[in-house]
Amino acid sequence: MSDPFVVVGADAAGLSAASKFRREAPDREVVVFEKGRWISYAFCGMPYFVEGRVERMSDLLSLSPSEVAERGIDLRRGHEVVGVNPDAKTVAVETAAGDSVEQSYDDLLVATGGRASTGPFDVRGLDGAFTLHDMDAAAAIDAYVAEPDAYDPDRADVSAVDRERVERNAAMPAPETAAIVGGGYVGVEMAEALRGRGLDVHLFHRSGHLLPDFGEAVGERVADELEAEGVTVRTNAPVEGLVGDDRIEGIAFDAAAGGGAGSETLPVDLAVVGVGIRPNTELLDGTGVETGEGGAIRTDEYGRTSLPDVYAAGDCATATHAVTGEEAWMPLGLTANRAGRAIGATVAGDPSPVGEIAGTAAVKAFDMEAARVGLIDEEAAREAGFDPVRETVTAGSRSGYYPGAAETDVTLVADRDTDRLVGGSIVGPDRAAVRIDTLATALEADMTVPEVERLDLAYAPPFSPVWDPILVAAKVLNGTLDGD
Amino acid sequence: MSDPFVVVGADAAGLSAASKFRREAPDREVVVFEKGRWISYAFCGMPYFVEGRVERMSDLLSLSPSEVAERGIDLRRGHEVVGVNPDAKTVAVETAAGDSVEQSYDDLLVATGGRASTGPFDVRGLDGAFTLHDMDAAAAIDAYVAEPDAYDPDRADVSAVDRERVERNAAMPAPETAAIVGGGYVGVEMAEALRGRGLDVHLFHRSGHLLPDFGEAVGERVADELEAEGVTVRTNAPVEGLVGDDRIEGIAFDAAAGGGAGSETLPVDLAVVGVGIRPNTELLDGTGVETGEGGAIRTDEYGRTSLPDVYAAGDCATATHAVTGEEAWMPLGLTANRAGRAIGATVAGDPSPVGEIAGTAAVKAFDMEAARVGLIDEEAAREAGFDPVRETVTAGSRSGYYPGAAETDVTLVADRDTDRLVGGSIVGPDRAAVRIDTLATALEADMTVPEVERLDLAYAPPFSPVWDPILVAAKVLNGTLDGD
Repeated sequence: MSDPFVVVGADAAGLSAASKFRREAPDREVVVFEKGRWISYAFCGMPYFVEGRVERMSDLLSLSPSEVAERGIDLRRGHEVVGVNPDAKTVAVETAAGDSVEQSYDDLLVATGGRASTGPFDVRGLDGAFTLHDMDAAAAIDAYVAEPDAYDPDRADVSAVDRERVERNAAMPAPETAAIVGGGYVGVEMAEALRGRGLDVHLFHRSGHLLPDFGEAVGERVADELEAEGVTVRTNAPVEGLVGDDRIEGIAFDAAAGGGAGSETLPVDLAVVGVGIRPNTELLDGTGVETGEGGAIRTDEYGRTSLPDVYAAGDCATATHAVTGEEAWMPLGLTANRAGRAIGATVAGDPSPVGEIAGTAAVKAFDMEAARVGLIDEEAAREAGFDPVRETVTAGSRSGYYPGAAETDVTLVADRDTDRLVGGSIVGPDRAAVRIDTLATALEADMTVPEVERLDLAYAPPFSPVWDPILVAAKVLNGTLDGD
Repeated sequence: MSDPFVVVGADAAGLSAASKFRREAPDREVVVFEKGRWISYAFCGMPYFVEGRVERMSDLLSLSPSEVAERGIDLRRGHEVVGVNPDAKTVAVETAAGDSVEQSYDDLLVATGGRASTGPFDVRGLDGAFTLHDMDAAAAIDAYVAEPDAYDPDRADVSAVDRERVERNAAMPAPETAAIVGGGYVGVEMAEALRGRGLDVHLFHRSGHLLPDFGEAVGERVADELEAEGVTVRTNAPVEGLVGDDRIEGIAFDAAAGGGAGSETLPVDLAVVGVGIRPNTELLDGTGVETGEGGAIRTDEYGRTSLPDVYAAGDCATATHAVTGEEAWMPLGLTANRAGRAIGATVAGDPSPVGEIAGTAAVKAFDMEAARVGLIDEEAAREAGFDPVRETVTAGSRSGYYPGAAETDVTLVADRDTDRLVGGSIVGPDRAAVRIDTLATALEADMTVPEVERLDLAYAPPFSPVWDPILVAAKVLNGTLDGD
């Protein structure tokens, strides 16, 4: 026990682990290496910063470096771990100052997160083109969107920010037309954010409905809501490339599905590419560590990798799916925080499972709320060994006579043989998103649809009709299951 | 199979049963006796009608008599079942016209509901004093609250309404000061409703906190909200009597706990007594039927009473509690609808359990939302054989940086020996009430608190922080359970 617990990465998973470890094992040492300057930032809050709903970038930081130090954590920013020697139990570190050092560990946690995937679209060197997976990009977009004489530099009030990049973007004329490439949840949130800043926004999506992970019912209502708020939604419109030399000038896309004549170019002066993220695993190259879904580091129920005393957590690591029991890679905030915290306890001597994931996620699009859990796609359900039966119902969110009652669409997916619930989604403007937690809980309890139908859910006219939309959906799906 | 399925009572349970039965057994006959004129009305909507949020009384009706007839149900209003002969399998019926008839049945469902308990307070014959468990009372209060020249008779636009009573109340000068006797959920809702109509409202409650079934944490925040909206909340203020001869003049109450000198009288010109309801079981007097909790008719998992081929459902019947497995009596809307529907299916030949109840309930008080489930009171938990451990936490409803994040109090109760969750409550202004369904689902799945802590609940800044308030509460309660 002479060497410290070494953590690589100072965001959700890494700092959760280090903090828990220090609380549980106050006499032991923990070192956190972070290659950049940013720590403990809320990735999910960036669209709301760009929108202007969040006033200061510092509002998105949970912990400052000095708060981390006060917890007794040895945080070293500007330290990139470039290699791991699992036999010697050391990591190789390169500092921003150009030094190389070696650090021994008793236990190692890889919490390196992910980075924005750009697909075939290289945004580097192209002014006005961005991805959105780091705070510097958010600060730069925010500065760019403002008119040069109207930008408030206090918006990006964090010392870690790339000030030069912010100032360069602030100095450019404000854009008028924005393209979002990719209709996942970041794309949807950015469409709302930029529309909120007054831009003419075009959301490009490769396939036929937005938010593919949420299923068609959600995708359609969210698209309707975006259109109603003035966003141009272009589904079945694969983007072919970003047009421009030093500065973004247009989006080239396949307009055939939309009735156009093959390739077209839409002139834009802002482009945000949000086509997913990839796990950061390079530091383990050559170690022989096992990887799995999405190329992420394979972990077991305690977050252990295939290397001795090496753990992984967060967006770089796999997890176990609550419905399939199989390996899954779903980079989400709670997963990272929870796994980090559990690993911190385990390393401190209190073995704690990281918990399973159900893929629970929620997204807001203007006044529409959407959420999903488990397996919704029938093909994915079949691949997991289920015989999926799916129903979507539209039900009221409140008693019909109570003002504000709104159409809520609930999709439930069950396995035909066992009646087991395997997934679902909810979309609507009235308290729809938080209702997904009921389904998440039912999924983790392996409930059948008849059991869901018999749940004693709350009835009160302002919040839910006698038969909650989830109960209505379960009733209809039971009818379908019975009829087969 | 020569005799019909006879149902007594044409509200939630009775008509759910009759409708389901007709769908499942279209060739068989169903007769529904209803002693009054009203059918299928939303009791829970009455406060919102009085408040004026619901414009027309007819909005509170789910089914009209003609719609019931279209379903092939033989509905007979003004027919009171006054006795049951389980050996002959007949019911004795008295009609509003004064006739007595006898009706044979193959199966009988008693769905006679409940009636307002007045405790020691007799409101009859006292103008301006009401209970609130029937539509005529709601219509009368609404008419009374309006100034005589401002009352819109179309508000009570239902032929069944007691028109004479409405007109008499409409003609009286409008009240200025109202007393609500009883701080249960009807009392809280009526306080909001009458305040919304501009009255000076005083809410009297016998014990120290409102909404006793919801626990102290809820009671306190709801009281604060009522006070902030101008309602005078008088806890520890047992009412001693209604003062007045033909017309309510005051409320006599024990003011000692509030610092007053024993008995005091508050002058009021409107009083609503909401001190609970009692099950209507008189028609079974002399049959030897078993009764149970609250004097309600004892039923088994299929809604069967101790009499052969006689079922009971709704506010007149007991149910099985999901947490204790014991008999319980909790008159709530979903319970009635669900049990009626299940019994309809069972009688039609498809045996269907009525489902267990978890006591899930929600209430709105102005901008505050509150909900409860399971066992919250520690004494009740002990009586049920648990060793209760309870924690209340205050957590944010959204990410801290997202506007609208509001303090949400979650109370969880667990059993010390097994770590099993046995109950909980949630209160807060931001989407608090529907979150109770997560706990209701966890309760029905017999989850432990560590399992609740590992639930993969949705995180999205506008709807929930990374650690949902429920997860925060589970984490804290787990710490307490571990520490013991």
